[in-house]
Amino acid sequence: MLKKKDKVGFGVIGLGMGRGHLEGYLKASNAEVVGIADINEARLKDCKEQYNLKKTFTDYHELLALKELDAVSIAVPNYLHKPITIDALKAGKHVLVEKPMALNAAEGQEMLDTAKKQGLKLMLHFNNRYRGDVQLIKKYVEAGEFGEIYYAKTGWVRRRGIPGAGGWFTTKSQSGGGPLIDLGVHVIDMTMYIMGSPKPVAASGCAIQKFPQIVGKGTFDVEDFASAYIRFENGATMAVEVSWAQNCAAEKQYSEIYGTKAGASLSPLVIWTEKAGILADLEPKNPRGLSQFQHFATCILEDKTPISPGEHGVFMMKILDAIYKSSETKREVIIE
Amino acid sequence: MLKKKDKVGFGVIGLGMGRGHLEGYLKASNAEVVGIADINEARLKDCKEQYNLKKTFTDYHELLALKELDAVSIAVPNYLHKPITIDALKAGKHVLVEKPMALNAAEGQEMLDTAKKQGLKLMLHFNNRYRGDVQLIKKYVEAGEFGEIYYAKTGWVRRRGIPGAGGWFTTKSQSGGGPLIDLGVHVIDMTMYIMGSPKPVAASGCAIQKFPQIVGKGTFDVEDFASAYIRFENGATMAVEVSWAQNCAAEKQYSEIYGTKAGASLSPLVIWTEKAGILADLEPKNPRGLSQFQHFATCILEDKTPISPGEHGVFMMKILDAIYKSSETKREVIIE
Amino acid sequence: MLKKKDKVGFGVIGLGMGRGHLEGYLKASNAEVVGIADINEARLKDCKEQYNLKKTFTDYHELLALKELDAVSIAVPNYLHKPITIDALKAGKHVLVEKPMALNAAEGQEMLDTAKKQGLKLMLHFNNRYRGDVQLIKKYVEAGEFGEIYYAKTGWVRRRGIPGAGGWFTTKSQSGGGPLIDLGVHVIDMTMYIMGSPKPVAASGCAIQKFPQIVGKGTFDVEDFASAYIRFENGATMAVEVSWAQNCAAEKQYSEIYGTKAGASLSPLVIWTEKAGILADLEPKNPRGLSQFQHFATCILEDKTPISPGEHGVFMMKILDAIYKSSETKREVIIE
Amino acid sequence: MLKKKDKVGFGVIGLGMGRGHLEGYLKASNAEVVGIADINEARLKDCKEQYNLKKTFTDYHELLALKELDAVSIAVPNYLHKPITIDALKAGKHVLVEKPMALNAAEGQEMLDTAKKQGLKLMLHFNNRYRGDVQLIKKYVEAGEFGEIYYAKTGWVRRRGIPGAGGWFTTKSQSGGGPLIDLGVHVIDMTMYIMGSPKPVAASGCAIQKFPQIVGKGTFDVEDFASAYIRFENGATMAVEVSWAQNCAAEKQYSEIYGTKAGASLSPLVIWTEKAGILADLEPKNPRGLSQFQHFATCILEDKTPISPGEHGVFMMKILDAIYKSSETKREVIIE
Amino acid sequence: MLKKKDKVGFGVIGLGMGRGHLEGYLKASNAEVVGIADINEARLKDCKEQYNLKKTFTDYHELLALKELDAVSIAVPNYLHKPITIDALKAGKHVLVEKPMALNAAEGQEMLDTAKKQGLKLMLHFNNRYRGDVQLIKKYVEAGEFGEIYYAKTGWVRRRGIPGAGGWFTTKSQSGGGPLIDLGVHVIDMTMYIMGSPKPVAASGCAIQKFPQIVGKGTFDVEDFASAYIRFENGATMAVEVSWAQNCAAEKQYSEIYGTKAGASLSPLVIWTEKAGILADLEPKNPRGLSQFQHFATCILEDKTPISPGEHGVFMMKILDAIYKSSETKREVIIE
Amino acid sequence: MLKKKDKVGFGVIGLGMGRGHLEGYLKASNAEVVGIADINEARLKDCKEQYNLKKTFTDYHELLALKELDAVSIAVPNYLHKPITIDALKAGKHVLVEKPMALNAAEGQEMLDTAKKQGLKLMLHFNNRYRGDVQLIKKYVEAGEFGEIYYAKTGWVRRRGIPGAGGWFTTKSQSGGGPLIDLGVHVIDMTMYIMGSPKPVAASGCAIQKFPQIVGKGTFDVEDFASAYIRFENGATMAVEVSWAQNCAAEKQYSEIYGTKAGASLSPLVIWTEKAGILADLEPKNPRGLSQFQHFATCILEDKTPISPGEHGVFMMKILDAIYKSSETKREVIIE
Repeated sequence: MLKKKDKVGFGVIGLGMGRGHLEGYLKASNAEVVGIADINEARLKDCKEQYNLKKTFTDYHELLALKELDAVSIAVPNYLHKPITIDALKAGKHVLVEKPMALNAAEGQEMLDTAKKQGLKLMLHFNNRYRGDVQLIKKYVEAGEFGEIYYAKTGWVRRRGIPGAGGWFTTKSQSGGGPLIDLGVHVIDMTMYIMGSPKPVAASGCAIQKFPQIVGKGTFDVEDFASAYIRFENGATMAVEVSWAQNCAAEKQYSEIYGTKAGASLSPLVIWTEKAGILADLEPKNPRGLSQFQHFATCILEDKTPISPGEHGVFMMKILDAIYKSSETKREVIIE
Repeated sequence: MLKKKDKVGFGVIGLGMGRGHLEGYLKASNAEVVGIADINEARLKDCKEQYNLKKTFTDYHELLALKELDAVSIAVPNYLHKPITIDALKAGKHVLVEKPMALNAAEGQEMLDTAKKQGLKLMLHFNNRYRGDVQLIKKYVEAGEFGEIYYAKTGWVRRRGIPGAGGWFTTKSQSGGGPLIDLGVHVIDMTMYIMGSPKPVAASGCAIQKFPQIVGKGTFDVEDFASAYIRFENGATMAVEVSWAQNCAAEKQYSEIYGTKAGASLSPLVIWTEKAGILADLEPKNPRGLSQFQHFATCILEDKTPISPGEHGVFMMKILDAIYKSSETKREVIIE
Repeated sequence: MLKKKDKVGFGVIGLGMGRGHLEGYLKASNAEVVGIADINEARLKDCKEQYNLKKTFTDYHELLALKELDAVSIAVPNYLHKPITIDALKAGKHVLVEKPMALNAAEGQEMLDTAKKQGLKLMLHFNNRYRGDVQLIKKYVEAGEFGEIYYAKTGWVRRRGIPGAGGWFTTKSQSGGGPLIDLGVHVIDMTMYIMGSPKPVAASGCAIQKFPQIVGKGTFDVEDFASAYIRFENGATMAVEVSWAQNCAAEKQYSEIYGTKAGASLSPLVIWTEKAGILADLEPKNPRGLSQFQHFATCILEDKTPISPGEHGVFMMKILDAIYKSSETKREVIIE
Repeated sequence: MLKKKDKVGFGVIGLGMGRGHLEGYLKASNAEVVGIADINEARLKDCKEQYNLKKTFTDYHELLALKELDAVSIAVPNYLHKPITIDALKAGKHVLVEKPMALNAAEGQEMLDTAKKQGLKLMLHFNNRYRGDVQLIKKYVEAGEFGEIYYAKTGWVRRRGIPGAGGWFTTKSQSGGGPLIDLGVHVIDMTMYIMGSPKPVAASGCAIQKFPQIVGKGTFDVEDFASAYIRFENGATMAVEVSWAQNCAAEKQYSEIYGTKAGASLSPLVIWTEKAGILADLEPKNPRGLSQFQHFATCILEDKTPISPGEHGVFMMKILDAIYKSSETKREVIIE
Repeated sequence: MLKKKDKVGFGVIGLGMGRGHLEGYLKASNAEVVGIADINEARLKDCKEQYNLKKTFTDYHELLALKELDAVSIAVPNYLHKPITIDALKAGKHVLVEKPMALNAAEGQEMLDTAKKQGLKLMLHFNNRYRGDVQLIKKYVEAGEFGEIYYAKTGWVRRRGIPGAGGWFTTKSQSGGGPLIDLGVHVIDMTMYIMGSPKPVAASGCAIQKFPQIVGKGTFDVEDFASAYIRFENGATMAVEVSWAQNCAAEKQYSEIYGTKAGASLSPLVIWTEKAGILADLEPKNPRGLSQFQHFATCILEDKTPISPGEHGVFMMKILDAIYKSSETKREVIIE
Repeated sequence: MLKKKDKVGFGVIGLGMGRGHLEGYLKASNAEVVGIADINEARLKDCKEQYNLKKTFTDYHELLALKELDAVSIAVPNYLHKPITIDALKAGKHVLVEKPMALNAAEGQEMLDTAKKQGLKLMLHFNNRYRGDVQLIKKYVEAGEFGEIYYAKTGWVRRRGIPGAGGWFTTKSQSGGGPLIDLGVHVIDMTMYIMGSPKPVAASGCAIQKFPQIVGKGTFDVEDFASAYIRFENGATMAVEVSWAQNCAAEKQYSEIYGTKAGASLSPLVIWTEKAGILADLEPKNPRGLSQFQHFATCILEDKTPISPGEHGVFMMKILDAIYKSSETKREVIIE
């Protein structure tokens, strides 16, 4: 597809979070920015001037109507992921959608089904997958350096750090949830990716709100903390913790994996291994990351499957759905 | 009971692990050592000489027959905890038994029932409860400084450290299990004690063996790693990890608790809290621990409930039973 | 007073040191900048352009004549504090004057008397009082967390750091003195403020010049080092050291207070205390300071006494006068 | 004197604190231990056996009666320093007395007068003077490397550390005072020694008790904290702080001196100086100390003045007397 | 010479490396920039605009033709040093030439001979000589503080850092060599300068290429590593190591000198010495460097010999020639 | 040989340095100590008692005459290595001789020739070869992990540390030289061993005495410092520095090797390498060393070549001879 083009024509919908997408496409050698859309006119104008763009729209439908547009990034509040993604796919555009994919797995599945039906790419913006240390450890895992990975721990905790308190982030109907869906989606996805994307089969969890006083006004009907325990088909288990407010040390994001031949922690990346029968610690230097925007354009131009395909977004939503349900029922939940 | 005595007469059964008990009683101002028993004659002789003791036995029944004996410490391989404890209780002696209490909850319950029937003390040797930092944080918790504790993490992991490889430690029928029962019993108990001994209601876990090659000869039919997730009646959750061999950094034992007013990590003890609306870290200096041997004697002399009563030993066994069962069934297990 | 206004109209006299005042008023929500004055035309023009101001004067009397002016900041060499302050007060303007208040206590008293007579606010620019860590510790002190504070140490020492060598800073008739009045005023005031502003009753000190060679040309007739010992009515004592040049490690500003229940050092702020009978170190995180410019405007609008009132400026000058006199007489001096 | 002997015959009176003296003489190549005395028979016996000594006495008069005895160390509670020293001097023996020399300057003067009258050595056990770093810095000072020393700070503070609470240390009539006389005597003497033993002319101070609750039983009628400010004839000043209990960081003993050419802090020893017009920090390595016991024997054999002569002990007592008096009168006190 | 001028008129040839020269002359109080030359028009235009210059040339001969030009800096690829320097000298201009002086000693000698013949200054851009720490240690050496310097070690190693791979740096005919001539010239010169410029008499070395794969395309016919051992007439020896690629820790540039009275390492500068018979480490603070551009102008105006004269450039080339020859012959080479 | 024995019968000649040998044989499972010899009777008696030995001799010939003796360790001053080794070999005993092997290569060759003629083992006590980190890195080198090793640096430097000043160590006729033969033999051998024992072909060096004043009395006719540069047949080079007294930081012993695939530094051991195209640092944990005494016994029992054979001792002496000669002639010396 797009065989006759050298560069993919991109648009960005939502410039609050999407400014990074815009800059990513501008830097990519195989992409060109066709237009942008945002309901906030001031933000739209600001981007237009800063990046010297021509076509800007407050109504994203107009952007989607452009012929020269091949693909769009969708970086809007979570509850709008599904409708806009489906609009874009139906308009014949490939889609790179921010994480979490949707408010729940059902929505995600609908998006994925649409993409498949349309024969278009649906890529998830799992940015951590493209980090240098993650790409490096992934290579090591694929080369068998870790043996069988049977346990992982991951978390992203904050002492005090509720985003946009009282806005859409803290409103369940717009966000789908609190730190579990906001932060958990990053660290669980990254860790599962490193583990080789094992199939989740069950999850047990607890998502609760303990700091209601911090959000002074506006809606706050999501959790501020969640813990979880996930089982995978291959027997591996994963412990998870996330929070927007917790009486802990400083903010910390981490991922640890344990295999029969080696274990690792990131970031910073340290690999605990054994060489020639001797226990040894390995510290890689300066691994380089990938541009996911360059990568997305390449996948479109060469018809390849992205590193972060839509299917993995649906898996992630199933895990999150299961943890929320487990928290309500206070019992482990089977993931189909 | 024992009203007319100033000091409690103690015996110690099993001097491999029990030497610390012996020294503890010798230092306690309200205890005196009546005699000791061990099937290993060399060890018995060595202790006799080093501590200048008179009555020593290779058959513990002879020790239990002494009139001047009021209580015994039992520090033998796990599978012998139940029979010797019951013998001692039937002989009218109070018992301080090493952890884990028994091979499983059923055995533990039988021991507890016997103690109650006999009207005697059955105390568990949960030594971490008596540490200075644990006693200190316990006081803070009881004073409400942590608010509601809703989450905890605990673990004891070793890069390479399988005890007495090929001996009773690695033989399921004698030990009851691997690091979960050997190390987990320490850290889970300590953490629950700090949390205020909430009632466990469910556990999900995985106990597996991944380093079979390390134990060269002898039996090795227990796990070398376990992860678990425990739910308590009050809604709190706890993440657990233990190992004898794991590709991790160095050996580490830790416990973290999180409450609505403060959180803490030990050891070393740091308390993350908020004073006058300001986030603050509190580092207590030089907290002093208790002698559990002095304490046991006091409980006997003054008819008090020990800090580590037999009931808590049974709770612990129920949790461990549930985790092992969950590991086999690959499903969460309800704790009755 | 000023009841019918929402914002106080401010002017700034002296832009060398007063630029911070200007920026402070511009940021304050309840202040507006009416005009500025400086004898240096280039500086005046520079500020006019940078901050987009309209009314600028090389003669401060013209600024004081503006009707819409309610208050002024005076940030000029020390020997001009008194005459300009009195001019401003007589013109009916509230005054925020830089520290030290004046060349000596007599001048300071005259300024204070004038303010009282005119019924206007005279506030001292003791900026350290408004720091986050100082406000925090002050709250703790007021809440009784330190018990009785009976001893303090404070200092500001520099290995080599004589300000504006050869200019007004080193000329006694214009500055009133060297590091004692330049640096000492900061640290002594801050420490006394934390202690609860105890009344000084005696001071012993030594103010000497030991590095005459450093100031190559121009006048240098003030001390470059001073040590002092101050007694307060409540029995507390304070040790002081200040220097512009001293063979010490690096530049250091510090304040330590010692009370019967806790002690503290800043900056960084560490509190040495005792909780539940246990010695503990408390480290507050990220305390936030106050804007003294916003505060000054609030005091004017709501007729409140400032955190740093003119009276404290006079006390400070009495202490400094006493130390200088003690240095000359080589005997302790009583402070009336 | 003693010209015909190679080794001086020593005795030690008081073995609680004097054990170090005994070991010092045993190691010295020019000393031999003649006998020891202590009213505590168990301690006497213990030393006799450990060091293989022959002549031991519970009555020190018997020791003093020995012909082969040339000199004695006196290491007993402070209130006994004077009577025993005078007894020893009258018996014709040289004396090395523990610090503080006596309960006050008058007693000290009497001791000194007696020594002079008898033509015997009276040396003070100012052990810090013999430390390697102190001897080193002393050499530098004497070589003019520091220029004129015009300021010093010294202190010895403890968070919690009241010695022998309730015993003679905390009883004014036996000790002469609290940390000022117990700890202050060490650090003030050491600092003055480094400064070249300038003549003290005035002292201002405060010696107060703020932790009465710490000493549960027994007498506690001395201060637990003291601050002071000392003036010397050469214009130099010194700030002093000492405590047995203070809400400070950890125990700390320090001395800092400041001269026109260099300054220094110990321990560890760092010298802040200037070489070739460049500021530089100098860190001496491994300076070696002296044995004061070897030194005392040498002084006797060669009729030299000790490094720590009795005169300096009297000066020290005058300073301490002045600080205590200043604390009572709340005014600076002139030292005659 | 130039007696009637206050400022020297400078030109810069080659703006890639020469931009620092340009900025140096612009800051110097005794220099003025007359014009610049570069074959790269874009770079020329960029400098013209940034520094507001008037006369710019793509042909350096035109620059040399300017009457108001007194001297030039030559900062071009190594193989052009000789021809342009000789052109400039023949045009009657003083020259500051980048290091290495030329491709070999013969070329350097020719340049030097020309300068002498013309009676003009030929200065080498040995920038390290002008560093603050180097100037400081040089002063100490000259003051005899190091005694006789009999050994030195110096090096500049990089894990991975081949400059302009495939360009003139890696092409022997244009650069004269690899890291030995590129990096070695810096560190060997700096170290010899500190040692007092002893005369080299022999060199043994090895210059080899071990990472051919790193330079993907273009020419790479120089070494990527060299080690060497240099003997001086005074008996001193020096060990050298340089690399563009080496499996070492991080990039490191160092110089160590050892004398009979003191030794030193830089950077950072630490001096290991002995004071008053005590081993001591001396750390100078904030030494200030010199501007070599100001210095060059001064040498021209006052007819002085520069700190880095052309003769030293020739010595350096002789050493480098000898090391390269030694590497080929695998034998020590005598330096005439 | 010795086929019918389980254990080798050992003797030790020289107990000053040989005590470690004695303890090594006592711990080895395949060795037994037959007797010891030392000319110092007190030392002989002391060892006899401490280790409960029966046969002790002041004349080593008597020891060598014992039938049950199979082998001896020779740990005497360097000049006695040759005569005693030859006596022992002629008596039919295997020999483990301390390093350096002899006073020069000629002596060493004679010893080696004798051993070969007698068909006996001659092993060198190169203890560093048996260290855990050395054995580990050796394995890595042999597995090709370092590629081609083309450069090495090694040294052992001391700020002040002349052994047995004035005794045989500092007397050339008894020691063969100073730190080059005393310390250099350790580090050069260890480094060459790691490099795979390349054949040395030339050496350049300087061995000089710069601290004559340190050795107060007795002979001091050897160097206190040496630097050297060694070439090997395979093109590799090695830089060496050793000293007994040098104005350097602290005492330091190091070895660094650089290969085309990896480099390393010890101790502590760090390996700089590249894995999967990523630069990485590898830190092995807890490598275990070998007992060279057990190893020597094994070599005798199983007729194997020791890890440190006599041939390598001769190579080492040739290098040392060449460096000393190079120092005298001030020219590189070819090693035959």
